[in-house]
Amino acid sequence: MTVATTQSLEELCINSIRFLAIDAVEKAKSGHPGLPMGAAPMAFTLWDKFLRINPKNPAWFNRDRFVLSAGHGCMLQYALMYLAGYDSVTLDEIKNFRQWGSKTPGHPENFETEGVEVTTGPLGQGIANAVGLAIAEAHMAAKFNKSDLTLVEHYTYAILGDGCNMEGVSGEACSLAGHLGLGKLIALYDDNHISIDGSTDISFTEDVSKRFEAYGWHVLHVENGNTDLAAIAQAIEDAKAVTDKPTMIKVTTTIGYGSPNKANTAGIHGAALGDSEIKLTRDNLGWPYEPFEVPEDALTHMRKAVERGASYEAEWNEVLAQYKTKYAAEAAEFERMLSGTLPEGWADGLPTYTPEDKALASRKHSENCLNALAPVLPELIGGSADLTHSNLTELKISGSFQKGAYENRNLRFGVREHGMGAICNGIALHGSGLIPYGATFLVFTDYMRGAIRLSALSQCGVIWVMTHDSIALGEDGPTHQPVETIAALRAIPGLTVLRPADGNETSGAYKVAIHHAQQNRPTLLALSRQGLPNLAGSSIDAVAKGAYIAVDSDGTPDLILIGTGSEVNLCVQAAEKLAADGTKVRVVSMPSWDLFEAQDAAYRESVLPKAVTKRLAVEAGISMGWCKYVGSEGDTLSVDRFGASAPGGTCLEKFGYTVDNVVAKAKALLS
Amino acid sequence: MTVATTQSLEELCINSIRFLAIDAVEKAKSGHPGLPMGAAPMAFTLWDKFLRINPKNPAWFNRDRFVLSAGHGCMLQYALMYLAGYDSVTLDEIKNFRQWGSKTPGHPENFETEGVEVTTGPLGQGIANAVGLAIAEAHMAAKFNKSDLTLVEHYTYAILGDGCNMEGVSGEACSLAGHLGLGKLIALYDDNHISIDGSTDISFTEDVSKRFEAYGWHVLHVENGNTDLAAIAQAIEDAKAVTDKPTMIKVTTTIGYGSPNKANTAGIHGAALGDSEIKLTRDNLGWPYEPFEVPEDALTHMRKAVERGASYEAEWNEVLAQYKTKYAAEAAEFERMLSGTLPEGWADGLPTYTPEDKALASRKHSENCLNALAPVLPELIGGSADLTHSNLTELKISGSFQKGAYENRNLRFGVREHGMGAICNGIALHGSGLIPYGATFLVFTDYMRGAIRLSALSQCGVIWVMTHDSIALGEDGPTHQPVETIAALRAIPGLTVLRPADGNETSGAYKVAIHHAQQNRPTLLALSRQGLPNLAGSSIDAVAKGAYIAVDSDGTPDLILIGTGSEVNLCVQAAEKLAADGTKVRVVSMPSWDLFEAQDAAYRESVLPKAVTKRLAVEAGISMGWCKYVGSEGDTLSVDRFGASAPGGTCLEKFGYTVDNVVAKAKALLS
Repeated sequence: MTVATTQSLEELCINSIRFLAIDAVEKAKSGHPGLPMGAAPMAFTLWDKFLRINPKNPAWFNRDRFVLSAGHGCMLQYALMYLAGYDSVTLDEIKNFRQWGSKTPGHPENFETEGVEVTTGPLGQGIANAVGLAIAEAHMAAKFNKSDLTLVEHYTYAILGDGCNMEGVSGEACSLAGHLGLGKLIALYDDNHISIDGSTDISFTEDVSKRFEAYGWHVLHVENGNTDLAAIAQAIEDAKAVTDKPTMIKVTTTIGYGSPNKANTAGIHGAALGDSEIKLTRDNLGWPYEPFEVPEDALTHMRKAVERGASYEAEWNEVLAQYKTKYAAEAAEFERMLSGTLPEGWADGLPTYTPEDKALASRKHSENCLNALAPVLPELIGGSADLTHSNLTELKISGSFQKGAYENRNLRFGVREHGMGAICNGIALHGSGLIPYGATFLVFTDYMRGAIRLSALSQCGVIWVMTHDSIALGEDGPTHQPVETIAALRAIPGLTVLRPADGNETSGAYKVAIHHAQQNRPTLLALSRQGLPNLAGSSIDAVAKGAYIAVDSDGTPDLILIGTGSEVNLCVQAAEKLAADGTKVRVVSMPSWDLFEAQDAAYRESVLPKAVTKRLAVEAGISMGWCKYVGSEGDTLSVDRFGASAPGGTCLEKFGYTVDNVVAKAKALLS
Repeated sequence: MTVATTQSLEELCINSIRFLAIDAVEKAKSGHPGLPMGAAPMAFTLWDKFLRINPKNPAWFNRDRFVLSAGHGCMLQYALMYLAGYDSVTLDEIKNFRQWGSKTPGHPENFETEGVEVTTGPLGQGIANAVGLAIAEAHMAAKFNKSDLTLVEHYTYAILGDGCNMEGVSGEACSLAGHLGLGKLIALYDDNHISIDGSTDISFTEDVSKRFEAYGWHVLHVENGNTDLAAIAQAIEDAKAVTDKPTMIKVTTTIGYGSPNKANTAGIHGAALGDSEIKLTRDNLGWPYEPFEVPEDALTHMRKAVERGASYEAEWNEVLAQYKTKYAAEAAEFERMLSGTLPEGWADGLPTYTPEDKALASRKHSENCLNALAPVLPELIGGSADLTHSNLTELKISGSFQKGAYENRNLRFGVREHGMGAICNGIALHGSGLIPYGATFLVFTDYMRGAIRLSALSQCGVIWVMTHDSIALGEDGPTHQPVETIAALRAIPGLTVLRPADGNETSGAYKVAIHHAQQNRPTLLALSRQGLPNLAGSSIDAVAKGAYIAVDSDGTPDLILIGTGSEVNLCVQAAEKLAADGTKVRVVSMPSWDLFEAQDAAYRESVLPKAVTKRLAVEAGISMGWCKYVGSEGDTLSVDRFGASAPGGTCLEKFGYTVDNVVAKAKALLS
């Protein structure tokens, strides 16, 4: 039934959002999701008056990006998407909120719901992703726009809450956003004074606006975000008027607005209202409609987004058509990038090596690969968290991505690993075809693991370039020496971890990483600080199989030595000594467990035959997980404790990474 | 040789620090360590005029705490410690800088060098540890001081750099420090405009002072930190005068001060000066002394710290003596805590259960344990990162630790996981005997892994209380569902990971965790959201063995089912079905891999006999590492992909965690 009400059209729309959320949360009967009672007005105003999207073509490139960083309020986004006419979120999906296989999971997930830009829920990630989306927009605009034709131009809007603002990752990313002066980034801060534990007074009394001013942001305040729609609209207008700074609009709201007994309490943060309070809220807000019923006027009004969206896209297609005529070459490049197609022969320039070539650190080989790819892959963009000259990640043909120089491809993240991670994820999810990379010391993946995990979960084509990958980094000591780190990264589903042994394997690792990026899969490279001799048996293509026979014996081997990265050469040398004593030894180089697992059983058997049970894995890290490859009769040469501060060579020797010790452990296995 | 110079005594001392560092770094010939050329004056002033320590008894309880958060400048600390007369850092140790077995590792390590308070190097950790040290001081002071006797009163000083200020973890901790009004925390910010990648202009142009003001800190600025010692001293005086806010003193310095060609360049951040530049620097600073030579006047002056320290301690011992007389009971408690002795029978109150008792979530059992221990262990202090009522970590007998209520034991960390981690480490390393705990959802250990790793490396007796430990948490979905998390945590050397199966095992887990805390070892508890039936075979003491036989068969088993946490009961039910079909099944509950590894071979063989090769591990997480216990002929029931948003029961069923599926996999193994 539709009842005449005295509500304005805006109120009808806003209450439609609120009650779709209330009804969905009530039906799901599951805790945690936030009810967007206070956030609905700002979200409605943004979507109704500003957001340039095309609900019927959510992937339309030049759309504004919307990120709900406060992901627990996901019903806000689902309600908006349904009302705006997205096909992915139907009323049935809303009724299926948080159920198996629904398009309305417990937090917004880009890989489940078409039209959701990024995956949020882990607090702070969304706003940091938004910084990445804004960086991608700024770069594409600087790269392709012409004085007479603006091909790329959109805003990135984020709604974040107190939780996001307490997280360090958001501080890191927002500090960088201020430095970069990302004028098309507009964040609405739902300032409701309540987090799960209660009033923010118990732990969060800082002056958030002043902090954002300190970051160099343009900061505004809407004092009554519950009902003052004009003020919200004006603030967004004012935000757009400032083009050289990101804007943070603090919108003061009442959590649970409209609920007589639960408004302004933590009780509403993580729970459904319950029948009686729902009734009281309906009465209080004058809502006579059935559960899940949306007044026709509201739906009709909101659905105008479809028509608007079609015209936005049509206008842009017109611009694109002109662009193609005037700037054919750039247009071709633009469309190639958006299609995610790699240029013909992009990998031809990857360097190859022979054993005669100089021994170099794999981080140095990585630098050579990045710079071999940079000219042929303009989509390659990235940098380091203040370790550029240790990680060796500079693209020499480009300058530094800075305010006024967004066309450049070297990102200067500062000492902000977690922010870097979330920003790279945002760049990857912009849909420009950009291939972002982020670098630090391998051990500091611990600082950004929240973002690395999300790169795998939310299907970001990012390359994580991690150097100084073992105790061999030496003097910096155990705080900087990864021992458990590679194992901990291998544990992440969907993350390909590659530890190349030499120049050819590093080139092969980049070939895999770029292909994965194109398939929206992240890859992590573990690279050495120290020099590594080039192996006779290595090749670019072998890497893609995850493991291969680097050195073999005549006939069935008595023993298999399995090495990764810097330890493969150690295995080769040990194999020579053992062979001299008449032992038949095979050396397997295993740059990637997960790529090996993806091979067929026949190939796996050909490399690691079941019949050969004497196996020794040699890796300068913990033994965890190796039993799968060495079996019950095998052994490992591993570091199952923290490292120590000393020259790298000394560390390797003290921890037993010597040819003699490998030989000794091998002989012990055979005896 | 000692040459007469025109330098003031202060200059002699400061240059002694600078050249000890230059000479040590030059001798070590290893990159990265920062030379404290610009930081030496502030550090000297702090140590010479303010720092109340006793070099001959570094563990004297009421000492001021000094934290070098910019840990790469460790030679600054080693030079100060040598000059001040610590026995742990001799001139030979300084000549052995960054060598195997030296007391002068590449970054300050509390577990290597007596007198170093915390382990720094991973940027941002030190200042966050300092917040923890200040919280511990504030709590002990509020708990023990009397109107007529002040037993606990010291400052916590930290020196941090641009890198620390860019890291999110420092922002989280400093925001909380401002909220708590920790007046005895004084941070000196070495503002030298240079980070490893070059000028901070490329990535860090925020107004740091304004940000700290926004946090509620008292902020001061010393414009010329290179030479204006009076201004530095005055600023520290002013900082001490403000008792209700922490103080951040921005001290503007020139990196590499004194080096004619490398001053104010990034070149000096990560490298030695080199012979010729050292000579120029010596000439420039008027330093005629031999390498490692300290002018007698300087050493004599700095060594006065020994005499001062003895008198500081003597004064305090006098206070303690009076305190013992007047407040015998409190004194006994104080001395018990400082000695790290647990009260007699502290564990007697841990609850025990029978299968008849109600099935509760292990997070609920955890709440019962915490509240059973709270009255008998006053040293227990902690809280959650804004998930108190999900993690169930509130100590009901205490209030909230807040400004003006520091005697309370419930810490409100806010949504600041990484800051919480580093703060808990700082509390543990204060030496008060306090046992801190920190809580969040298990999956968000990814946000604080940097601090969890350091709790193991730097020997912090912390309890990590992690709830919602599997896909069974349900609706929140894959962003919140740990699958790889337990494996990734088991990988950390020295961290005991415990996943209890029921009430008795949770009590047992706390018994282990408290004992570990006393031994300065961290423990992580993985606890369920959902209810778990109480097992017939479980007990408190069995947990300490890591794995035990929960259900056994007559004679040698045909099959062993190994379960952890919530999956043990599933194994028990499957075993009953299998036994009904005549299969001899043993069920092993394995709450902790590492505790099991610590048992002797005979015990391990008695639980998992080599002869029994048919083994199935059942855990709602990835399979990585299980091959070690199920062997080449065994199998696992695991989740080797990300989870999904749906009710917890549905998730378990869809991922195969049903009795029938366990039975089916078991029969497949046996066939």
